[in-house]
Amino acid sequence: MRKPRLFTPGPTPVPEHVLLRMAEPIIHHRHAEFIALMERVNRHLQTLFCTTQPVLTLTASGTGAAEAAMTTLFKEGEKGININNGKFAERWGKMMKTFGMTAIDVEIPWGNAIETEQLRDVLKQHPDASSVWLVHSETSTGTYTNICEMARTVRETLPNALVCIDGITSIGAHECRMDEWDIDVVMTGSQKGLMIPPGLAFVALSERAWQKAASFKSRNFYFDLKKAREAWQEHSTPWTPAVSLVCGLAPALEMMMEEGIENIWHRHATLSRGLRSGFEALNLKLYGTSPSHAVSVAYLPEKGGKDFVKLLKKDLGITVIGGQDQLKDVIFRTSHLGYYDEADMLGALGAMEHALHRIGHEFEAGKGVYAAQRVFLEAARR
Amino acid sequence: MRKPRLFTPGPTPVPEHVLLRMAEPIIHHRHAEFIALMERVNRHLQTLFCTTQPVLTLTASGTGAAEAAMTTLFKEGEKGININNGKFAERWGKMMKTFGMTAIDVEIPWGNAIETEQLRDVLKQHPDASSVWLVHSETSTGTYTNICEMARTVRETLPNALVCIDGITSIGAHECRMDEWDIDVVMTGSQKGLMIPPGLAFVALSERAWQKAASFKSRNFYFDLKKAREAWQEHSTPWTPAVSLVCGLAPALEMMMEEGIENIWHRHATLSRGLRSGFEALNLKLYGTSPSHAVSVAYLPEKGGKDFVKLLKKDLGITVIGGQDQLKDVIFRTSHLGYYDEADMLGALGAMEHALHRIGHEFEAGKGVYAAQRVFLEAARR
Repeated sequence: MRKPRLFTPGPTPVPEHVLLRMAEPIIHHRHAEFIALMERVNRHLQTLFCTTQPVLTLTASGTGAAEAAMTTLFKEGEKGININNGKFAERWGKMMKTFGMTAIDVEIPWGNAIETEQLRDVLKQHPDASSVWLVHSETSTGTYTNICEMARTVRETLPNALVCIDGITSIGAHECRMDEWDIDVVMTGSQKGLMIPPGLAFVALSERAWQKAASFKSRNFYFDLKKAREAWQEHSTPWTPAVSLVCGLAPALEMMMEEGIENIWHRHATLSRGLRSGFEALNLKLYGTSPSHAVSVAYLPEKGGKDFVKLLKKDLGITVIGGQDQLKDVIFRTSHLGYYDEADMLGALGAMEHALHRIGHEFEAGKGVYAAQRVFLEAARR
Repeated sequence: MRKPRLFTPGPTPVPEHVLLRMAEPIIHHRHAEFIALMERVNRHLQTLFCTTQPVLTLTASGTGAAEAAMTTLFKEGEKGININNGKFAERWGKMMKTFGMTAIDVEIPWGNAIETEQLRDVLKQHPDASSVWLVHSETSTGTYTNICEMARTVRETLPNALVCIDGITSIGAHECRMDEWDIDVVMTGSQKGLMIPPGLAFVALSERAWQKAASFKSRNFYFDLKKAREAWQEHSTPWTPAVSLVCGLAPALEMMMEEGIENIWHRHATLSRGLRSGFEALNLKLYGTSPSHAVSVAYLPEKGGKDFVKLLKKDLGITVIGGQDQLKDVIFRTSHLGYYDEADMLGALGAMEHALHRIGHEFEAGKGVYAAQRVFLEAARR
């Protein structure tokens, strides 16, 4: 027997008591008990986003949150700079084109993050751009972008451009201080750091962004954030929300509030460091130059690497995920976003040692878990 | 002690085994087990919609399904005839305007359905209309529209106009034969006849509609049904779906397949007839001229009527819902859409008798449940 364990960057595992909360009889979304629940949820989401602005809850995937922000804030013909360093970043560029925006796709080699100077140069070339889109944690490559620094660079160079952050796999993993860092749009999804199933997306806009939105008529309906903000004032949503998911969100957020968001960021940093140390100790080459704390990426072993992911799932109960496009059969991605602790990392590394042994990869048995554990103990001593 | 019982037209009650299924550990939406689940779900949805066309599953409320159909099928400037006989119909007219369509709002007095001759006249006045929007079961007023007849009328009068049906509270309650009746768009939501929580919406397009969609470039992204159809071929979705809701949908649809859709329609007709007989027997005046089988509507008793809904919820555990806009404090709506049987109707009527007694309404005790039970027994004898 092997317990099934999910190490995918969304859906991520849902705590058992959250699952059971969602299995309670359904309640009506216009009644007092749901409104009280939503009030608490809304408050906790603001803490999570480090903002005093409303964090709006949409019934959609994270892509819906991006669409909501884009169509609420930008008209046809507006120019958006899209920092494209992976599959998800690529999607926002396509979305801009669909909605008639001029997308300036700045291609950054996969596995890398844009640097300050590079961004400044791009901004200077496009002084008419009204937005800059950045992916905080690019899930397709496990790449972290320094949003604090990039937001400051945009604000210095193009003071009026809106800084739009895909925080889909960063919120709850990486420090993201929306108000303090002067970010205009932050969005995330439910099945990531928030530890509940997919189906909800969240988005917050800055005062600057709301003012821009107010300056023209909405060109969307379901994703009209102006309408969503009105409903938010009454702890409600314009359309029927995914009630059971909101009921799960409440205890998930309470767990997060109890742990404290700075501790959550720290936990993710430690898990990421431990797992990557384990990979290196197992002679697995790390991928990328700027690792995300949400998902750790390594090259598949040259010998038998194609079987590695399958073997892990089939015989060892561990679901990790391969690469996409040019990274197919090249890398594997192990998520530790959300409901994970050190024991999960040790367990995953232990299973990986089994699988690596089977495919004939060369490494010293036990060294992966040893390396990770040393990182964890060291982190605890600080 | 009073058990809490929900009689709202969405969310509707979720069967216990479906709730528990959704509480199982989350699975990944790109893995074999989920794809196999989706394949079964897709097949059953076709049976439910009486169509051989794909029934596409969106992560959204029913409003999202309408937006998906509207933006996938119609360009700016196209003329849509919106048969507006309630709050939900009204919404589709607003949506048309948001997306730059010319909305011809045909106002039908609330509580009434459009008649064939009237529709024919409207169609003749607008030979350039490319769509006609009809609400099969208008939830705000409990009104049924004869879609079979109206679809035929459109086809005879404006052969190329697309017939778009809001089946949000009709699918699973009223006969709706998409292919046989030559309907172009049918949409519904998860928290209605499908007996699962809100968060999924479903939409199917006719061959005629798909051809129209193919003739121009998509102007939407999240709700691009062409993209959704491509993913459907592989039992997938373009974006991360609400996995746990799909996991609940599978056993809910299996229940429906076992009962048989004609039996489900018959059950809803019987429950509706029984409940309305009960209302009449309790000297409650029925509202409207064309009752939906999903939600039964009666006027609140003149004396103490305002307390009736509150009393039912607070002291008797029964959640029904009041009216909206001009019907606020005028009517109450009792849903029997989805997971309901005769015992539920008798229980609701029993509780209503208690509440009516308390507010001093005049009626003969026991006569409500008696009248309903006579309808149920008579239906069983057939």
